[in-house]
Amino acid sequence: MDLKMLGEFGLIELFRKDWPPHPAQVVKGIGDDCAVIDTGGSALLLLTTDMLVEGIHFRLDTMTAYQLGVRSVAVNLSDIAAMGGEPTFSFMSVASPADREVAFMERFIQGYRDCSLKYGSRLLGGDTVSSPGPLVINVVQLGVASPGQVLYRNGAKEGDTILVSGPLGDSKAGLKLLLHPEVALPPEEKEYLLRRHLTPEPCIKLGGFLARSGVVTAAMDISDGISSDLTHICQESGVGAVIWAEKLPLSDSCRRTAELLKEDALSWALFGGEDFELLFTVSPHHVPHLAKAAEVELGVKLTEVGSVVKGEGVKLVEGGRIRDITGQGYRHFN
Amino acid sequence: MDLKMLGEFGLIELFRKDWPPHPAQVVKGIGDDCAVIDTGGSALLLLTTDMLVEGIHFRLDTMTAYQLGVRSVAVNLSDIAAMGGEPTFSFMSVASPADREVAFMERFIQGYRDCSLKYGSRLLGGDTVSSPGPLVINVVQLGVASPGQVLYRNGAKEGDTILVSGPLGDSKAGLKLLLHPEVALPPEEKEYLLRRHLTPEPCIKLGGFLARSGVVTAAMDISDGISSDLTHICQESGVGAVIWAEKLPLSDSCRRTAELLKEDALSWALFGGEDFELLFTVSPHHVPHLAKAAEVELGVKLTEVGSVVKGEGVKLVEGGRIRDITGQGYRHFN
Repeated sequence: MDLKMLGEFGLIELFRKDWPPHPAQVVKGIGDDCAVIDTGGSALLLLTTDMLVEGIHFRLDTMTAYQLGVRSVAVNLSDIAAMGGEPTFSFMSVASPADREVAFMERFIQGYRDCSLKYGSRLLGGDTVSSPGPLVINVVQLGVASPGQVLYRNGAKEGDTILVSGPLGDSKAGLKLLLHPEVALPPEEKEYLLRRHLTPEPCIKLGGFLARSGVVTAAMDISDGISSDLTHICQESGVGAVIWAEKLPLSDSCRRTAELLKEDALSWALFGGEDFELLFTVSPHHVPHLAKAAEVELGVKLTEVGSVVKGEGVKLVEGGRIRDITGQGYRHFN
Repeated sequence: MDLKMLGEFGLIELFRKDWPPHPAQVVKGIGDDCAVIDTGGSALLLLTTDMLVEGIHFRLDTMTAYQLGVRSVAVNLSDIAAMGGEPTFSFMSVASPADREVAFMERFIQGYRDCSLKYGSRLLGGDTVSSPGPLVINVVQLGVASPGQVLYRNGAKEGDTILVSGPLGDSKAGLKLLLHPEVALPPEEKEYLLRRHLTPEPCIKLGGFLARSGVVTAAMDISDGISSDLTHICQESGVGAVIWAEKLPLSDSCRRTAELLKEDALSWALFGGEDFELLFTVSPHHVPHLAKAAEVELGVKLTEVGSVVKGEGVKLVEGGRIRDITGQGYRHFN
């Protein structure tokens, strides 16, 4: 049997099993956006890591070195945001062919640095190695969070409202535009979608806001698509979820791109992933106040997209029909 | 200009420059075996990361999956040892072709787990992604150390004695045996050298012992070869070093392998690297007591190999002649 058959989540489970129980200072191990460690200081330590592989996560013919630098750290910062944390430091390893131009690496680290500093994070170490294969970048991002104010995946309760922080499907639409540059979309809309895909903005402020609110029962960032990511929240919380197709926030630019390409914008929103918006659950009676505060304090529009229900799995209600969309989305090795 | 011309240390410098000064909780940033962070707890946090690439750091025709698992974590634990720290947790990312056998990953994680648990470390997270290229493994190892008992590279003083913790060149000899299996060495010697190369043992106990001794002025682990690694200590400490060829500890098995292959064992010891022994400096009047205590308490034989001197660079005294060997050793991209 090979990894194609086992799948990404099967491999994670293989790595996760057969370890002795964690010592007491581990507040959260594998199974959330970040690991959480109590170091004995006043703040909890958050750690997350993401590996990006050329040809899988990015293509150098459709992404500049600067954008790659931004993206490498942004996808990790998004995991810190999903826990309600504040970014502090990162460690970055890169494996590169020896014939890569130095100018490429200069622009790459410029993007990495700009994005890191924008969110208050510094580079503290890493590794630089040569590779006979594709460019591979691994980032470990550290952050801090106040005890009692960390957002986990496992607290969603029956009856909770499911919300998202911004439009879904934009990243996939941006990717499609890169692959089909001939699509006749107005330049400013193209630019918007490409930006959403190439240089995502981690929801650090919103994450901190949600953590301090004290009313969010579960949260994560949308990296694999709402269908897949909501499935994680359901599994960790022991609940099910129903979302309404017509409530999903899709940008007009995303819808138009899908129309021009004769593709399905809803699929992009459900399964496209990499939007790096936050997905979270809140008891319904807290929603109005929370949504208003987010709009007033941060200028962020929260959108209700469904409800947490008894049972398991994720169901989509679309035009009077119910579809099971549990766990669909991007999977490595499959 | 490409990375071949810039070189590994040029690339590290490119990544390191143009960042604002570190905030106060950073005790040590880039430029030592580990970064050191004061999290506000009673212990300092150590972090180090190493990336291993198939075809560069390991070959799957000469190393089993289990050995690769051991090695992936051992090379990182060695950096914790070099700072005098105690390992706690690790994060491991792996990029693998989708057609890799699941059984391979099972044996890999078994080696990783066995080595981690032997030194008290647990896996707390990671990332699993597919790759169209070689197998790439990135490990981030965390550890803790007591404030005031951390070993850095930058405290070596003129007149200090330079010591190493064990034989040098064994790892290179083991690699040579893998490439030349026909070499007629007794089986137990072959086994010894292969073990030294394939499954190195990080000097965690010795590192802690040296840190607690309070007399070690600078330390690091030997990963690129004593010539290159001692150059780092000299640069960070603002001193020079002289080592004596005849004092370098080489195992009989290493010497015999070099003889049979008509190669130079001394070069392996100086430039071979990957021995993962500790290299450190101590004021001469502390050496006898320290060496005796290491032998009695840990069964480790410390060997004096040279002296810290005024100036810069590393010089080798060999049969009445002096050679400059500053900064020679394995370099990525070159």
